[in-house]
Amino acid sequence: MKDLYQQSIALHQKHGGKIATEHTVPLETTTDLSLAYTPGVAGVCREIAQHPARVHELTIKKNTVAIVSDGSAVLGLGNIGPEAAIPVMEGKAALFKKFADINAFPLCLDTQDPEEIISIVKNIAPVFGGINLEDISAPRCFAIEERLRAMLDIPVMHDDQHGTATVVLAGLINALRLRGGDEKNVKVVLSGAGSAGVAIAKILLSYGIKNVTACDRKGVLCHERDDLNETKQRLVAMTNPERICGTLADIIVDADVFIGVSAPGVLTQEMIQTMHKKPIIFALANPEPEIMPEEALAAGAFIVATGRSDFPNQVNNVLAFPGLFRGILGSGKQFDETVFVRAAQAIASCVEHPTPQKIIPGVFEKDVVHSVARVV
Amino acid sequence: MKDLYQQSIALHQKHGGKIATEHTVPLETTTDLSLAYTPGVAGVCREIAQHPARVHELTIKKNTVAIVSDGSAVLGLGNIGPEAAIPVMEGKAALFKKFADINAFPLCLDTQDPEEIISIVKNIAPVFGGINLEDISAPRCFAIEERLRAMLDIPVMHDDQHGTATVVLAGLINALRLRGGDEKNVKVVLSGAGSAGVAIAKILLSYGIKNVTACDRKGVLCHERDDLNETKQRLVAMTNPERICGTLADIIVDADVFIGVSAPGVLTQEMIQTMHKKPIIFALANPEPEIMPEEALAAGAFIVATGRSDFPNQVNNVLAFPGLFRGILGSGKQFDETVFVRAAQAIASCVEHPTPQKIIPGVFEKDVVHSVARVV
Repeated sequence: MKDLYQQSIALHQKHGGKIATEHTVPLETTTDLSLAYTPGVAGVCREIAQHPARVHELTIKKNTVAIVSDGSAVLGLGNIGPEAAIPVMEGKAALFKKFADINAFPLCLDTQDPEEIISIVKNIAPVFGGINLEDISAPRCFAIEERLRAMLDIPVMHDDQHGTATVVLAGLINALRLRGGDEKNVKVVLSGAGSAGVAIAKILLSYGIKNVTACDRKGVLCHERDDLNETKQRLVAMTNPERICGTLADIIVDADVFIGVSAPGVLTQEMIQTMHKKPIIFALANPEPEIMPEEALAAGAFIVATGRSDFPNQVNNVLAFPGLFRGILGSGKQFDETVFVRAAQAIASCVEHPTPQKIIPGVFEKDVVHSVARVV
Repeated sequence: MKDLYQQSIALHQKHGGKIATEHTVPLETTTDLSLAYTPGVAGVCREIAQHPARVHELTIKKNTVAIVSDGSAVLGLGNIGPEAAIPVMEGKAALFKKFADINAFPLCLDTQDPEEIISIVKNIAPVFGGINLEDISAPRCFAIEERLRAMLDIPVMHDDQHGTATVVLAGLINALRLRGGDEKNVKVVLSGAGSAGVAIAKILLSYGIKNVTACDRKGVLCHERDDLNETKQRLVAMTNPERICGTLADIIVDADVFIGVSAPGVLTQEMIQTMHKKPIIFALANPEPEIMPEEALAAGAFIVATGRSDFPNQVNNVLAFPGLFRGILGSGKQFDETVFVRAAQAIASCVEHPTPQKIIPGVFEKDVVHSVARVV
């Protein structure tokens, strides 16, 4: 990893920024200038002032997304602040361009106050066709997203939640099909109670999987616990239909699916051996998963997915966000759970012949963006 | 003009936005992705978290400017709001790229409250190397600029003020040289008491021209008047050293220079005939100047400049802002009057052999940006 970090720093030093702007209109003659800028542009301004909806045709709003972060929950690095978060947001902007031909621009905010963040995003919205919230810590991310959706007439999505959840469901759809049996009547154990955990629980429920139980480091999230923060209370309200308390080891007995967005070492071979037949393991902690794939397989796992590109079945949200925004931009729609479920189904269907080693398409498979965009 | 507006609308409709983003790093393989994005990018984030100054080397901050407007004073169109202002800001972003290879991004704000504007710009600053304020009405623009300069460690400039003022001084330097005599001991009459008027008065005083008197529609701005708004009070405090009251026709007698940033028809041939010998006329109202150049020349004007590209001596702030930002980005400096005066001198010196028909370089003359950047 150390080498990779050094190589990445060298790449950033060489380029000094991973995105740039370009002008798309000719600017070679004074006539060009008088059409792209003053005085001709006054005609365009007046047109939009008189017919506000034309802003969607005549400006960059049509195809431009803001990537907004406050640097409070960046990768596994935690609260490193807005400047240190820039490389991630730039990278995301580069991926938006590469995979969906969307112009995305990073905005890293020098505040972590939810009211200020909401107010800033509301006030910068005129130029943008959509808002991608990124790396904002729970529980602030929930209210920020909910209130902005209610407030704005452009789509808003916190990718750490819904991008991840969408790809998890996509993989799970293919995994459950390969395994056979009733796809929705399965017992899922979710380890990790952050923003991704909440979104995964939500999308599974929306898809129709009823039996989801979440755990944190201390055990099952149940109504009896009085140590639950706001995020975990959200999870308890949605999950644990049998109202069970106990440890992960208790609850995983006879489970069909384990989904971890937590920490290395959380899942043991012994636990997998107590699961129902053909257990499905999503060990998504990054860079070190909850259990290494070879150990999980040796303990009897039927299918293993991770967040890493060096193992089969990588859960990578670059499979989701480009198509989600490509599909929704300019449609007048807002993101909701039904959109994410349809997107997951579209991603799943991009794998023509799923096998235990391939339940999720590769990031460079071309169909994915368009398949997702079509169903959004 | 109507044709030009229609052509401009057609151009905007065709392109749907005058700028786009591009990615500057390769994104063709999974290795590329792991260096530009996760997991490699974590190394870059950590590097910036530990050594904050490296944000200037490793990210787009190095070469990126925000163009911030609230749509309150757009061109001659007035307060048309943030959406209708987007085409101007996009055009400006395109010019930044074309003339100075700077990545500029438009932000049109859905608020006109100065406190909110200041707070938003402060909070979006991490990603940017500089802030270009644009089309914000007086007097709010003064406090917004002043407070942001005091607050931020990146350069901030309201272009409607300083871009225009810089190019006016550049033209005036060459005009006064052509005319001969004591360059600084001249009487200047300024018509128009908006943000550009204030900035022009300031830069002339900084350059060393002491005798500047400003007028509005009602006449000379003097201490005796009790109808002056905040902007005009600023002007009175700086100008009118002889404490004269009266009309434009009164004050223009024996003046050497008229500078109009006001309205068509303000200056008459009769007034020019009362000026000192070889009068210099800057009639910058757009699109219709204070007096048409042919009329001014017929009345005895020695040199006439306008804001229009279809007459000689166009005062166009594209001569100033690209070089100003090219020079200041990454320098750790803040804009101030001495920077603008040096920039004006640099622009003036780009005209190798000034004549009454050419006191200002053309917008496509290549030396200008670099000459300005060098002295900044």
